Parts: sequence; C-alpha cells; structure tokens
Amino acid sequence: MTVGMRRGGREVGQMRPVTIETNITEFAEGSALIAYGRTRVWCTASVEDRVPPWLAGKGRGWVTGEYAMLPRATSSRTSWDRSINSGRTQEISRLIGRSLRGAVDLKRLGERMITVDCVVLQADGGTRTAAITGGFVALAIACNRLSATKQVRTSPIGSRVAAVSAGIVAGEVRLDLDYAEDSKAEVDCNIVMNAAGEIIEVQGSAEGRAFSTAQLHAMLGLADPAIRELIVIQQAAIDGAARTS
Amino acid sequence: MTVGMRRGGREVGQMRPVTIETNITEFAEGSALIAYGRTRVWCTASVEDRVPPWLAGKGRGWVTGEYAMLPRATSSRTSWDRSINSGRTQEISRLIGRSLRGAVDLKRLGERMITVDCVVLQADGGTRTAAITGGFVALAIACNRLSATKQVRTSPIGSRVAAVSAGIVAGEVRLDLDYAEDSKAEVDCNIVMNAAGEIIEVQGSAEGRAFSTAQLHAMLGLADPAIRELIVIQQAAIDGAARTS
Amino acid sequence: MTVGMRRGGREVGQMRPVTIETNITEFAEGSALIAYGRTRVWCTASVEDRVPPWLAGKGRGWVTGEYAMLPRATSSRTSWDRSINSGRTQEISRLIGRSLRGAVDLKRLGERMITVDCVVLQADGGTRTAAITGGFVALAIACNRLSATKQVRTSPIGSRVAAVSAGIVAGEVRLDLDYAEDSKAEVDCNIVMNAAGEIIEVQGSAEGRAFSTAQLHAMLGLADPAIRELIVIQQAAIDGAARTS
Amino acid sequence: MTVGMRRGGREVGQMRPVTIETNITEFAEGSALIAYGRTRVWCTASVEDRVPPWLAGKGRGWVTGEYAMLPRATSSRTSWDRSINSGRTQEISRLIGRSLRGAVDLKRLGERMITVDCVVLQADGGTRTAAITGGFVALAIACNRLSATKQVRTSPIGSRVAAVSAGIVAGEVRLDLDYAEDSKAEVDCNIVMNAAGEIIEVQGSAEGRAFSTAQLHAMLGLADPAIRELIVIQQAAIDGAARTS
Amino acid sequence: MTVGMRRGGREVGQMRPVTIETNITEFAEGSALIAYGRTRVWCTASVEDRVPPWLAGKGRGWVTGEYAMLPRATSSRTSWDRSINSGRTQEISRLIGRSLRGAVDLKRLGERMITVDCVVLQADGGTRTAAITGGFVALAIACNRLSATKQVRTSPIGSRVAAVSAGIVAGEVRLDLDYAEDSKAEVDCNIVMNAAGEIIEVQGSAEGRAFSTAQLHAMLGLADPAIRELIVIQQAAIDGAARTS
Amino acid sequence: MTVGMRRGGREVGQMRPVTIETNITEFAEGSALIAYGRTRVWCTASVEDRVPPWLAGKGRGWVTGEYAMLPRATSSRTSWDRSINSGRTQEISRLIGRSLRGAVDLKRLGERMITVDCVVLQADGGTRTAAITGGFVALAIACNRLSATKQVRTSPIGSRVAAVSAGIVAGEVRLDLDYAEDSKAEVDCNIVMNAAGEIIEVQGSAEGRAFSTAQLHAMLGLADPAIRELIVIQQAAIDGAARTS
Repeated sequence: MTVGMRRGGREVGQMRPVTIETNITEFAEGSALIAYGRTRVWCTASVEDRVPPWLAGKGRGWVTGEYAMLPRATSSRTSWDRSINSGRTQEISRLIGRSLRGAVDLKRLGERMITVDCVVLQADGGTRTAAITGGFVALAIACNRLSATKQVRTSPIGSRVAAVSAGIVAGEVRLDLDYAEDSKAEVDCNIVMNAAGEIIEVQGSAEGRAFSTAQLHAMLGLADPAIRELIVIQQAAIDGAARTS
Repeated sequence: MTVGMRRGGREVGQMRPVTIETNITEFAEGSALIAYGRTRVWCTASVEDRVPPWLAGKGRGWVTGEYAMLPRATSSRTSWDRSINSGRTQEISRLIGRSLRGAVDLKRLGERMITVDCVVLQADGGTRTAAITGGFVALAIACNRLSATKQVRTSPIGSRVAAVSAGIVAGEVRLDLDYAEDSKAEVDCNIVMNAAGEIIEVQGSAEGRAFSTAQLHAMLGLADPAIRELIVIQQAAIDGAARTS
Repeated sequence: MTVGMRRGGREVGQMRPVTIETNITEFAEGSALIAYGRTRVWCTASVEDRVPPWLAGKGRGWVTGEYAMLPRATSSRTSWDRSINSGRTQEISRLIGRSLRGAVDLKRLGERMITVDCVVLQADGGTRTAAITGGFVALAIACNRLSATKQVRTSPIGSRVAAVSAGIVAGEVRLDLDYAEDSKAEVDCNIVMNAAGEIIEVQGSAEGRAFSTAQLHAMLGLADPAIRELIVIQQAAIDGAARTS
Repeated sequence: MTVGMRRGGREVGQMRPVTIETNITEFAEGSALIAYGRTRVWCTASVEDRVPPWLAGKGRGWVTGEYAMLPRATSSRTSWDRSINSGRTQEISRLIGRSLRGAVDLKRLGERMITVDCVVLQADGGTRTAAITGGFVALAIACNRLSATKQVRTSPIGSRVAAVSAGIVAGEVRLDLDYAEDSKAEVDCNIVMNAAGEIIEVQGSAEGRAFSTAQLHAMLGLADPAIRELIVIQQAAIDGAARTS
Repeated sequence: MTVGMRRGGREVGQMRPVTIETNITEFAEGSALIAYGRTRVWCTASVEDRVPPWLAGKGRGWVTGEYAMLPRATSSRTSWDRSINSGRTQEISRLIGRSLRGAVDLKRLGERMITVDCVVLQADGGTRTAAITGGFVALAIACNRLSATKQVRTSPIGSRVAAVSAGIVAGEVRLDLDYAEDSKAEVDCNIVMNAAGEIIEVQGSAEGRAFSTAQLHAMLGLADPAIRELIVIQQAAIDGAARTS
Repeated sequence: MTVGMRRGGREVGQMRPVTIETNITEFAEGSALIAYGRTRVWCTASVEDRVPPWLAGKGRGWVTGEYAMLPRATSSRTSWDRSINSGRTQEISRLIGRSLRGAVDLKRLGERMITVDCVVLQADGGTRTAAITGGFVALAIACNRLSATKQVRTSPIGSRVAAVSAGIVAGEVRLDLDYAEDSKAEVDCNIVMNAAGEIIEVQGSAEGRAFSTAQLHAMLGLADPAIRELIVIQQAAIDGAARTS
C-alpha cells in the first residue's frame, strides 16, 4: 500500500460510510446503533427521575456518559475487569459526558438524570467519536419523548453535537482514521462540534511527533464539514425514530 | 389476560420465535446473535493459545463462559459495576462455562482456551438459556475454524448442547417463560441437554411453592423436544456460517 | 478399593453419620454445628429489625444466606480473599438463601431480616447441603425465639427443609458423596426438599458425561427418604435447643 | 454490680478459665481451639513448601498470621466484607504474625511458610491475645510434625510465646478484661511474653485517660505470672496433641 | 562505623534536629510541616461540621487520622495502590487517630469532625512519631481557630501530645532511630506521651530478640524528657501560627 | 471586582509567578517543587531498571505519569480513596504520561522505566499544567543523572516540554486561570508545547458555551510565548540542580 492511499480509496477528508439505526431496544427511552465503517457502537439513553446527590433541589438535571467495550470488540480479547476499570475507559466516559451535557439545557431538563451508555460492539478506530455522535441520537430521542409525553414543556436539547477524529499519518492530515491508520499516526485528534461549526471539545495528542498550529487548523478544517454532514444524518435518524416509535 | 393465556397465544410447550445470526463480528473466531423472542444475546468465542496456569503442560484445553448484561438491557438501568460483579452474573457465567465445557473434548482441543462471552443486549426472560444455545453456536464455529485451518485434526466439539427454561405459572407447566411469566412463576427451571436428550445441567428452584418430582418430569418433558429443535436451528446456523465466512 | 465399595462400607443410598449440636454460640438468635461425616459447618441465624431498602414498608421480611469456608477447611490452604469473593462462594450463598427463604412465611416474619451464616470448619464433600440442613436448624431456633418472646404471633417457619447431594460414580447412583467420590463423579446433584418430599431446589451437573432423566429420578429417589430422615434429626435438635436455651 | 467486682468474682490478677483443645481439624498441620472464658478462637497452622517472593533463595522461612472474626461472633452481626477488610483486622493480623514469627527460628524452618489462621468463633474481649496463645499451640504442633517427619532436623520453635490483656477499669489495674470491662476501660494493654518473662510485644492505649509508667509496670506485673501459667497450659496441650495424632 | 556511634555523633538519648513550620497551606484549618532529621511529614487538620453516622446526635465530636506515604518518600518507589491500602498504613492511621483523639475533649469540640492527614514527603525512620507530633500542631491550630472564631467557647484541646521512637540497637537503648538504625534494631518502640509524662500509647515490638521490663523502662526513660522538649517546640510553633495567620 | 480585572492585576496573557525548586528529596533520581501562583506540585522522577511486561526485550524504555492530590490540597477535604481512584485523576495521569513520554527518546533511554509522580500540595487551578512543567524538570534531572553516571551515552531527553492553561472568562481569552477564574470559565484549555512552539497535546473543553476556531487560535497564541518562557525557567532550574547535586 502506497503511503497516502487509504483503505477503500478514501480521500483524506472523507469519512467512512456512516449508518445510524434507531429504536434498537424496546426498553431504553432513546437508542441508536451507529457505524463508522467497521466501528459499531450500541447507544442507549436512560432517563431517571432523580439527580446526583450534590445537585438535589437545584431545579436542574444532569447528563452523564458511560463508555464500555465488549471483551471481543477488538482483535484480541480483553477481560471485563480490565476493560471496565481502565483509565482509558474512564477518560472516554468523561469526554462523552461533557460533550453531551454541552448539548442539553439542564434547566429545561428539570430534576432528571439521563445516562447515555455507549457500548462498542466492534472497534476499528474512532470509537469515542462514533459514541458521541450515536449517543447524541439516543439522547435526542429520549428528550423528544420527554416533550412528547409533556414531562417537559420543550425538548431540553439546546444544540446538536457530533464528533469525528482526525490525525496525521506519514505527514498527511486525514479525517476519521481507522485502526490501521490510527496505530501508525503521528498525531491523533478528536473533535466535537455543534451545528454552527463551533468547538465543544478538541483533544489533540502527539504520538511521537509534535504538530504545528497550522496542522491543528487543517485537522479542524477537515472536521468541520464532516460534522455538519453527520448532524444531517443524525437529524434524519431522530426524525425517523419519532415516526416509528 | 386470563390465567393460562400466554402472550402471542403460545401453547404451554411452545417456544418463542428463535433466530440465530452468525458471523456478527469480524474479529472473534466464532460469533452469533441469538433471539428467544425479545431476549437477544450477543455471543462471541475467543480462542487463545494458552491455558489457565493450573492446566499448563497437561495437553488439555479449557472452555469458560462470561455472562454480562448491558446496563439498559432491562426496563430500568443497572450500573456496570453492579451488573458485572453481582452474584447472579457469576452464577450464570459458571453455568454457561460448565454447560459448554461439557460439549467439548478438551484433549482434542489441545492446550488452548476458548472464552465464550454472552452479552445480553435485551432481556425478556430466559437470558441464560439463550446464552448457552447461542454460545454453543459461537463455540462450534470457532472449533470448526480450528479444524479448517488444521490447528486441530478433528473438531473438538464432542456433543451438541442447547438450553431452555421451563416453569410453573398458576399451577401450569410452561416452556420458555418470558419476563412477565417468570416474575410470577412458582417454579423456575433451566435445562441444558444434548442432542440425545440427555441432561447436561438441570437447575430447578421453587419460587414460593415446592414442586413434585412429577412436575419436574413434566418440565423436562417439555424441554426435550424443544432442545432437539433448537439443535436443528443451531446446526443450520453453524453450517451457514461456514459457507459465508 | 473395588469400584462400588464406599469408604466405611456405606450402601449407595446411605448417608454418612449426621450430628447436629445446637446453641453453639451465646450471641446468635439461633445456631447449630452440623456434621455430615467429616464435613462440619458452623451455622448461625442473626435477626435484625430492618429489611433491605427495596423491601421497606411492604410488611414482609427477608431471609438471606452467606456461605464461607475457613482458609484451612480443606487439604490445602485458600486465602480469605479468594475464598470470600469467589464465584463458587456467591453461587452457594444464593442457593442457601433461596432454599431457606422457601421455608419461611415472609409475611408472618414481618419487617425483619434473618441472615443465616454457614461457615465450613472442615470440608469433605457436601458442604452446601450440610449448610442448608444445619442452616435450617439455626433459622428455626431463631424463629421459635421470635414467637417465644411474642415478637411474632406464630413462628414464621412454613415448611421444613433439608438437603443432600447425590451423584453418579463409575456409573452407579450414590447418595451423599464425600470429597474422594465427588472428585471422580460423572454427575453431581444437590437436592433440597421439604418434609412432604417436594423439591425446593434441584441442581444436577454433568461432570464429563451427560445423564438420563431416569438417572435423575434415581438420584431423587435416594434423596427423598434421606431428607425425611434428616428432617427428623433436625426436629430433635430444634426441640432440644428449646429445652436448653 | 459494685465497681471493682468482676464477673464470676475474679481477682484483679486472675484470668478467666482457659481451655485448649488440639487436633480440631484433620487437614491442618497443627490446630487448636482455645477459650479465654467465653472468647473462643479456632487456630490452624498451614505449612507450605514455598516462601514469599522477596524471601526466595535465602534459605530462611516465614511465619505469618491471619485474624478473622465470624460475622456473628459478636452480639450484632458484621458483614464478611467489613470484617475481613477492616483496619482493625489487618492490625491484629500483623500483631499475630510478628508475635509468632518471634517464636520461630526461621533458618531452622528452612524455605517454608507457615500461615497461622486465627478465626474468632465467639468474642468476649481478649480475642487477639487468645489468638496468639492458641496460634502458638497450632504453630508448635505443626513444627513438631515437621521434625517428627524428618523434614527439619530439630523443631524450629525457638521460644514459647503467649499473650494476655490487661487494663485499667475505674482506676483499678486488672488482668484479662472481658468485653463488658473492656468497653469501659480507661486503658487497654496487650502483652505478649516468652517463658522467661521477656516482652515480645506490648501495646498499651489510653482510652480517654493517660496512664503512668507505674501503671504500665503494674499491668506487666499482672501479665507475667499469667503468661507463665498459659505457657504451662500450652505445653500440656502440645504434648497431648503429639500423643493423639 | 563502630557500634554505638550514631550518625551525626548523636548521644543515645538525643533526638535528631526537629523543626516545625506552620501554616504551610492556605486551605486547611491547621497545618504543619515537621522534620525529625531527614524525615519530613506534611500535616493538615480539616474541620467538618458533621460527625460519623454512628455518633450523630450525641453532642460529641470526633478526631481521626490518615497516614500516607508519597510513592517516592523512600529509596525505592512504592505504588499508590500498595501504599494506601497496606495493612501498615491502616495500622499507623489508627495509631495517629487514637493518639490525637486522646488530646481532645470531644464534648467541647461539639458535633464536628477533625481529620488530621499526615503525608510523609521523605522517610528516614520515625515517620509515625513525627506524624503524631506534627499532627498535634495542625490539630491545635485548627482548634484555636475554632475558639478564635467563637465556634466553640474554649479550645477543645485537653492535653498536649507528642511522640518519639526508641529502640535497642546492638544491645544499646537509643532514642529516635533513623532508618539505618531501625532496620538493624532488635527492639522497636513507639511512645506517645502528654506534657505530664503520662503515656497515651506505647507499642514495643521485639524484632528478633525479646526484651526485659527493665529495657522497656529505659526506653520510656529516654522518651520522657524528649517528649517534654517536643511539646515546648510544638507550643512555640502553635503560638507562632496564631501570630502570623 | 469588575469583569476583566484579574487577581493581582494580571494581564490577560500574563502567567502567575512561577517558581521551581529542585532536589527537594534525597531519594528520587530527579525532583522539583513547582509553583504557579498558589498552586504547588511536588514532582519526583523514579528510575527503575525494568520495563512493563509488554515492552520487555524490545530495547526501549518507558515513561509514565502518576497524578495525585493531597486530601486537603483544596478548600474542602477529599478522601484518599475518592481522590486516587477518580476518573479525573486517571485522566490527568494519562495526560502527564503522554506529554512527558513525548519529550523522551525511548530508545536512548534503554530498557528502563521512569515514573514521574506529581503530587498536588495545594490546588488553585492549573494543577495539571504545573504538574507537566514541573514533572519535566524532575524527568530531565533524572535523565541527566543517567548520562552523568554513564548509564546512557547521551541524555534521553529529546525535546523540552512545558504546559499552561488558557480559557475564556466572560468572553475574554485569558492565560493560566486560577481556581476562581476556572470555576466560572466558559472554555477551559490545556496546552502542552515544546521549545519550538509545536503542540504536544491540546485539550479544549466548552463549559457551557461552544467556542470558535478563532478563539482556540487566540488561546494557543497566548500559550506559545508563555511556554517558551517556562522552558527558560525550567532550564535554569535543571542547570542549577546539576550544580548542587
């Protein structure tokens, strides 16, 4: 494989095929199965009529994220214990929670807690960004249900949020790395944005070679249109869920 | 609902619709998604070229099971921590392990370990029996791959194994209880059998009312033909997996 | 030793000598030290005026079991940590809890919790069945004390419960296996019954060879009279405890 | 009860009745059940042909202690989890280990590890001192067996060790406090000595009121003859164990 | 180095240089950095307007201690996990808690809890005694602040408490062992006293050789004047803290 | 305080006073105490002649980071357990590890592991960036010692690394937020750069309001000269450490 050639002949700024299936479980208030290429994440949003103790009585709600990877989501098996309690899992759970919390008007949510569980069925790079994009769909469906059932006056969704990774491979800035690219990338960057192209969260890490501000801008530049497109796909999925539920 | 009427008009000895989809992940050596009605379990079999320390150097392999339930597989959310570490989870993992180990000739397997992970995506009663039936499919596919790739001379599968629950509801013996039936059952029984109608494991528990040997006999009588039918469905799935992999 | 000969010349349907000593501690509301041959289990029943949170305010009580093995109950030492937290320990604790809960009328018990601790001082096979039989004695003594002290109107004991194991060794169905027999048994079965010969719990596991329904019946057939005899021994112990306490 | 009057009319320097039963289990290399009045501790010594990693290859052995209290050893129940992992349990385990290690010539023991488990069946004050005195008996029996079976040339026991508590209650120095005295004591002191009246370990704690060196002296003065007497009782038990084993 | 010669030419009854710096943090209600030679301990006292659940509503407060060692306080690194959860850490935390609790009139403290954290920055022997002496300074400063701000009528400090170690090295009784001495000591003794020379806690352990009552008295004899001196140094620090805070 | 006015009259692009003290402990191979205003972090670098198991035999070394906060580093106390095991602590430890690993040539390091412990003595915002800047000093001193003692041919330090936070408060981009600013910031950004102004790691999070690429650019623009200045201060500290050690 020549350097610069991507699996499936993708352009540097081209995402893998994205699909979102909704209402994948009968029990969760919102749910979605998202695929970024071979990466697949099972997302559910669970609404509870309680808040964490430190938030009690303040008239506001809370949104939290939980990330997990099935033991055989990857090419070799990882034990549940190692997977659930790892620092990596906690770091990603916190990222998902922050990103999705940023999409919700916690006052409009009222004293409720929404937990978005993102379970990786199959991992081929970009699991945390797929989790955020899919998790938002589950969250929005759950919020729509709250307003459809008159539990809240208007949906607590304040802005639309999606995420994608970018990176630098052999000096080339690329969007949405798969595992093979990710494992040889010099820079790995995860970008969460809203529909206005504003940043919710950006995390860029040098993996062996530092990068310039210009390169960071290039990565953000690739992410911006991709995230706008993801938000369109999300919206279609959310609208479809409302019709079929 | 009249006592005796079952959801969907099922007969007392009739199972819910069973479907098995195979090769659901690209990484596991064997995999299957099984449904018993609304209960759905994601099963993967992972082969490793090592055995537990206490078995090293004995020329035999090992098969073990791991059961887990996604946080929102049920009508209310359960935390990962509570789910993974509960006594119930451990009890079921051990049952799956014993049942599937009984299906394998550990000498023919050689010094390898196969871990069968059964993850409940959606729970509506009978999760442990669906896990065993689906787990066997994943295990058999993995074993077939071992023999197809000449890692073993003949497949280590020694016998075919499937499982179903039975119970007593309002005095009536019924097969394959769903959650609504299970939660009001007087007796709950899980039965694992091989293709010859022999018992691998039987666990019957009185839930409030003791039962007679005759009633146990009746439950085993309902299970026997159902398990033979499940083994036919399993075999079709295993054969199909070989053609498509 | 010829196959078929049992240690001490026991018949296939003959239990090891059973002894029950009561009031073995001054603090527990009920207590018993039971021996099945060399297997000895220290059982205490502790009554508390509270119920688990999920049962609060429902006017019903709860009974739970906790099994533990002393580090040197067996021929080699096991650490506390490994013993207390093992899946086996949790599985047996749950079995004891279910079995003893089945013997109690939880409404008559009122909003109280009884914890039956079964601690294996010495293990030579059959520890879980001895624990249930001895645990019932401790439980009954504690319940009798509740009614003797007018805390409840009538004793909450609803039925008498005892347990014994059976198995298949070298093709022969045998009752109450000791460790030497258990470790070479093809089938291992634990049976909990009430005084009417009804089943509270049955757990039969193939250990390498599947078994027929007929063999299961043969094992239940050996267990039935043994359990009736155990219940007589229990009753004598419970009556004796009342006289001496 | 007048201040100064002790339960059972004991003198200030008088121990509760002490009994030691040996060979209480068939599996441990050494074992003893000791009673200080109503306090009863089940002690086993387990010999293993290995040492902790940090001691490997140094030609010396190791002795360690493990203390545990059964959930219902006391007037109200304590959960296993809270009991096993508490700081108190760890502190006492370390005290037992240090005290018994001081009794053994670790070079004569060779590359072996002896674990002395002291399990409190019933607690009425003085459990840690009874554990040391009883633990020594189990340890000595195990060491005698090592020399009887020619695994070591001479018994590794270097000195005899026993322990007793003392305290100050209502200003009065008393020996071997029971729980009722202990809970109102101003000073609590645990004393481990050898047959020569030398100190192995002394731990004195003010419980609300500081104490003078003279008072410490008085407590040691009561302990000295009591420990010499305990060592005589120990020796009789050890000798008896040798005859009956 | 000749036996009997001490590092820095110290006399047997001479402490290492002791320094106490106060108000080392802006947040804790009381704080002190204490040095016993190269041993340095960072002590903070934290006041909370709550008590442990079992003390609620009794009109009394509580004082507790927490000891910890930084991973690289010693010559080789210890992981946080091993350090925080070790039995040694728990044992020392309990010692600090008991010793400092003995210095406080818990009724005068009212329903408040003071937690004294003692973090070893550098360890060269005597860390637990330095922690108690420094912890008392932090505690006293916090108590003085409570009375200065009229939260309590008079300071809850009931007596002054300090601690020092003593030991026997090559048969010689010595005060305040450093690590090099401690690691070859035959006896190790930790002594906590008040300003009147009364004992709060004494813990003496034979490390290979038992010791006589006379030797215990000699160790206490060295400790007594040293602790009186430490209390003078403490008082100067506490007074200085009041002036500068 | 008017919006826009900063504590101490700082300019928006002005850091708090930075001080670095080195060789703060006698045991660690490298050590530094760094202050960013009132934030103070105790950093040690520990060199071990081993690598993690998965890196064995590859001729390369490893650098890892461990972050911890003392229980009373903040205005209210946090328990050790909650602090050490929190997701936040793990997330920051991973950030420190990645950042410092990026500064080291792991081949030149050889099969050695350096653990950089960063312990927050006092927290007033910016603890993770101060930890990286101070941690680099400890790391560099340890690496210099490796080359001074000829354990490696040339120092494994490949590039100089420092970190600073930036954020948006009331719409204004500011450098190096203290806790008061951080708690009301709309955006929080942590930036790790090398001496060439290249990015090692950037993490920007919207705290309630999304931000533009231009604002990210502005934050990076404030960080760049500050980090160059920090690297000068680091170098002076490292050089000073060499002279005094």
